[in-house]
Amino acid sequence: MQEFELQLAETAGRIEPALAALLGRSGSGECEAGRLQEAMCHAVLGGGKRLRPFVVIAAADLFGVPEEAAMRTACALELLHCYSLVHDDLPAMDDDDLRRGQPTVHRAFDEATAILAGDSLLTLAFEIVADPRTHGDGEVRAGLALELARAGGRTGMAGGQMRDLAAEGRFTASGRPLRLSEQDVTALQDMKTGALFQFAAVAGPILARAGSEDRDRMARYGAALGRAFQIADDLLDEEADASELGKAAGKDRAAGKATLPAVIGIEAARDRLAGAVAEAHAALEVYGERAALLGAAARFAAARRK
Amino acid sequence: MQEFELQLAETAGRIEPALAALLGRSGSGECEAGRLQEAMCHAVLGGGKRLRPFVVIAAADLFGVPEEAAMRTACALELLHCYSLVHDDLPAMDDDDLRRGQPTVHRAFDEATAILAGDSLLTLAFEIVADPRTHGDGEVRAGLALELARAGGRTGMAGGQMRDLAAEGRFTASGRPLRLSEQDVTALQDMKTGALFQFAAVAGPILARAGSEDRDRMARYGAALGRAFQIADDLLDEEADASELGKAAGKDRAAGKATLPAVIGIEAARDRLAGAVAEAHAALEVYGERAALLGAAARFAAARRK
Repeated sequence: MQEFELQLAETAGRIEPALAALLGRSGSGECEAGRLQEAMCHAVLGGGKRLRPFVVIAAADLFGVPEEAAMRTACALELLHCYSLVHDDLPAMDDDDLRRGQPTVHRAFDEATAILAGDSLLTLAFEIVADPRTHGDGEVRAGLALELARAGGRTGMAGGQMRDLAAEGRFTASGRPLRLSEQDVTALQDMKTGALFQFAAVAGPILARAGSEDRDRMARYGAALGRAFQIADDLLDEEADASELGKAAGKDRAAGKATLPAVIGIEAARDRLAGAVAEAHAALEVYGERAALLGAAARFAAARRK
Repeated sequence: MQEFELQLAETAGRIEPALAALLGRSGSGECEAGRLQEAMCHAVLGGGKRLRPFVVIAAADLFGVPEEAAMRTACALELLHCYSLVHDDLPAMDDDDLRRGQPTVHRAFDEATAILAGDSLLTLAFEIVADPRTHGDGEVRAGLALELARAGGRTGMAGGQMRDLAAEGRFTASGRPLRLSEQDVTALQDMKTGALFQFAAVAGPILARAGSEDRDRMARYGAALGRAFQIADDLLDEEADASELGKAAGKDRAAGKATLPAVIGIEAARDRLAGAVAEAHAALEVYGERAALLGAAARFAAARRK
């Protein structure tokens, strides 16, 4: 576990300057002139585990694609993830003032700038994958753009966020959280969180022009990884509250967020978490030891303490 | 002129059902279930001249690409345009309640839904161009995605919108509009409005796999068309106010928007408008009569009354 975290941190140390370069940050540490650029840099640089781009790089490696050749795709995914955080934090959405201990973009700048910075990060993600520098084969670049759009759009992350708001009771007269089944919550989280992890896992075989069997296996792994990540997140929220606030119900549950611990209880959620990790390993089985790092990523997603 | 408007309206009549199909609206006239889908449909369907997708189709035709083969690209551009309207109308941006006589998305639904609907329309635009149904050649699809991202992002439309807000004095302590030169205003509008029209014109040669000379000529045409469109818009705003409100300064000028009439006066702006139309025709000259429709589009953009 510690070994994995070390490797994750080392990789993050190489992803960070790649992100900075794509955002136009010069060597001197300053962003290109302009408020929009500054806001985009604020949203992306200086923190984060970079687990999604790590998975892109590790999954690409499994299919013989070197880190340099996967880095632009990895960064594009991280930009897309960061755009979603910027828009999620807006007053009309989750209304958060802090993110990773820093003021959120609309707090550090203003709402209009945050909206446009998110829009620009999303657009930049597609500019990066569609650029010939990402891969010499246009079919691959178009394939990456297509999968990234599916993962991010109405049937993926954005659609999942919309269902999340609906689950809070935002769009009902009563404003009370909806009663969701385990199946509802899992479907919602597969969209909201799973879709981007699935893209991370599938980008490798796409970059390597691997066949559909490899793509299917990696999609299964990515979905399981995303599920583990989200359940662990919800369990951490419950536990943080239990120790810090002295109450059993978590903040997200209190906010009416659709979480598995809220619907089936903590013990059953832990059971599902173990199941997701097992599913991730099962998907990787055919690759044997070569997929050890991806297996460790799934265990890390499940066992992390923040 | 009337003949052109008829053709524009006829084409819009074919673009509308294509947009509806891409948004998942069924034959019965109802959108797919779900608030996000409904908001996306509200943002896109039921109005608009559809001038940008018209130009995609007309420019594609010039290079021998039939309308059916250009339609998905045309629709993707219109979705990107509509996303920008949804986000522009938000309270934190221009705070508009009405668009084409209908409640804006955040008024008809709510702000969170409008943010996510805009995000989803932007993402869907890339999903559409990257899909194999748009073109059989991945290089073409990746090329379209790259140009669309450049047109929409920080160095194109989103960047221009940011400059527009800055010109209003949003980000200065005084809040007073900035003093911009003619060059500043033109550069801003080339980004904010010109970039999407440039994409519209360039998509044709990209779809036809035409050479760089054709792409350069069409880029020049598209930029000139966009400039004509924006100056005409600003002049209409001035005139509307002069007749309706009995004052000389336009609404946009009053709001501190960066417009050419505000900076160089109405007569000089009319002069620049004529110059932009002449530039559009000059760019098309080599194509002779085959480009008559695109020439008419530039004259229409300049002479329209709304």
